[in-house]
Amino acid sequence: MNPTIDTLLNHRSIRKFQDVPIEKDQLETILAAAQQASTSSYMMAYSIIGVTDPDKKAALSEISGQSYVKDNGHLLVFCADLNRPTLKASQEQYEQMLDNLENSEHFLVSSIDAALAAQNAAIAAESLGLGICYIGSLRNNIAKVDEILELPDHVIPLFGLVMGVPAHEPERKPRLPQKAVYFENSYGNPESALDDFDKTMVDYYTTRSSNTRTDDWTTQMLRRFMNPMRMDVTEFVQKKGFNKK
Amino acid sequence: MNPTIDTLLNHRSIRKFQDVPIEKDQLETILAAAQQASTSSYMMAYSIIGVTDPDKKAALSEISGQSYVKDNGHLLVFCADLNRPTLKASQEQYEQMLDNLENSEHFLVSSIDAALAAQNAAIAAESLGLGICYIGSLRNNIAKVDEILELPDHVIPLFGLVMGVPAHEPERKPRLPQKAVYFENSYGNPESALDDFDKTMVDYYTTRSSNTRTDDWTTQMLRRFMNPMRMDVTEFVQKKGFNKK
Repeated sequence: MNPTIDTLLNHRSIRKFQDVPIEKDQLETILAAAQQASTSSYMMAYSIIGVTDPDKKAALSEISGQSYVKDNGHLLVFCADLNRPTLKASQEQYEQMLDNLENSEHFLVSSIDAALAAQNAAIAAESLGLGICYIGSLRNNIAKVDEILELPDHVIPLFGLVMGVPAHEPERKPRLPQKAVYFENSYGNPESALDDFDKTMVDYYTTRSSNTRTDDWTTQMLRRFMNPMRMDVTEFVQKKGFNKK
Repeated sequence: MNPTIDTLLNHRSIRKFQDVPIEKDQLETILAAAQQASTSSYMMAYSIIGVTDPDKKAALSEISGQSYVKDNGHLLVFCADLNRPTLKASQEQYEQMLDNLENSEHFLVSSIDAALAAQNAAIAAESLGLGICYIGSLRNNIAKVDEILELPDHVIPLFGLVMGVPAHEPERKPRLPQKAVYFENSYGNPESALDDFDKTMVDYYTTRSSNTRTDDWTTQMLRRFMNPMRMDVTEFVQKKGFNKK
């Protein structure tokens, strides 16, 4: 098709990296690509913290439970950031901004802006031959990540993105059938497509090259959702001035 | 650098399209690319509604206030979707899932999953020579969009993505200086970088090829945030079973 489509379709998460830091000009390119992503009403409502301090990386790795959060070519943490628009506001203006800054709409805007930028970074990295993995498990202790990165009010950590030279080559993981995800004009019933997918996943999990098990997608999701997790995120984000109104 | 990086760095939003629908195999490729994006714990917590019905496109165009929401090569609406994991659950299991499904953590997960998939779709489209524009203004009346697309509980519309053959060639819009967005190890002070950026933006707005004005970023953001907008999003998303706990 074209090299960009090839890069997009060949994505798989990489969780083992060679002990090689990414090059400075690679990082510059990745950050420039991230910044050129679309942004809601020009708000650019995110920040990126590159973590190089070994103690901080070790602490973040412990929170996530994943060794590759410290052992990689570089670690970025993407944050929702509504702090910048407040910096030049008078006290009176600031107070008038709060209804808007702290509503669900701008919690969405900033999370989506951060994700669009992150995905550009991920694709830029992959196009350069690097591997990547998103680290949602930083939210296992979101308050602690916030403290480690010294984030002010109206800035919260959302997820990490590790990158580096791959040291393994995992299989490409199947995705839901298109007819379970894409509908025309109104929402359709994905149930029969999910049945098909569960069969696909039984095959995938029993035959993949490592960590085989008997499982399917529906069962995996039931397991996940029946155990409440990260119930502290709500209180944390509100304390930081997000999602309050 | 490479063609993918070129595509990423050359992004600009396209708001005028030739009257040509995108081709079926282009759409297939774009959807496949969207689906291959990273996803939190394999949840794939989003759906995509392609809107082809002229009445529905006209209604969505009216909500957004933008003619290019009906006049384009194709319109996708990206939705946060936590419905699929519930479909095979017993009543008892379903009730046990709700704490998790309806918390802020999974509001974040589903919004971020949707955005990662959307950005892959955007980049795939741009790599094929198409132009794109995100449509956050669908949230001007999020409840009405939800009704038009007939979305069930635990599915909400987040934003649109229009694509098509470009009929104009706008300038690439500047981004915040890297030092206002990227920090190492802890959050830094972006204020002096914002001063520089305000100067850049005065130049940009006074010299661009159309719609010139006197403005800078800080003033634009103050204007935006001092007028509360979309305050109904909170109540709407909670009514649909998101962001309640």
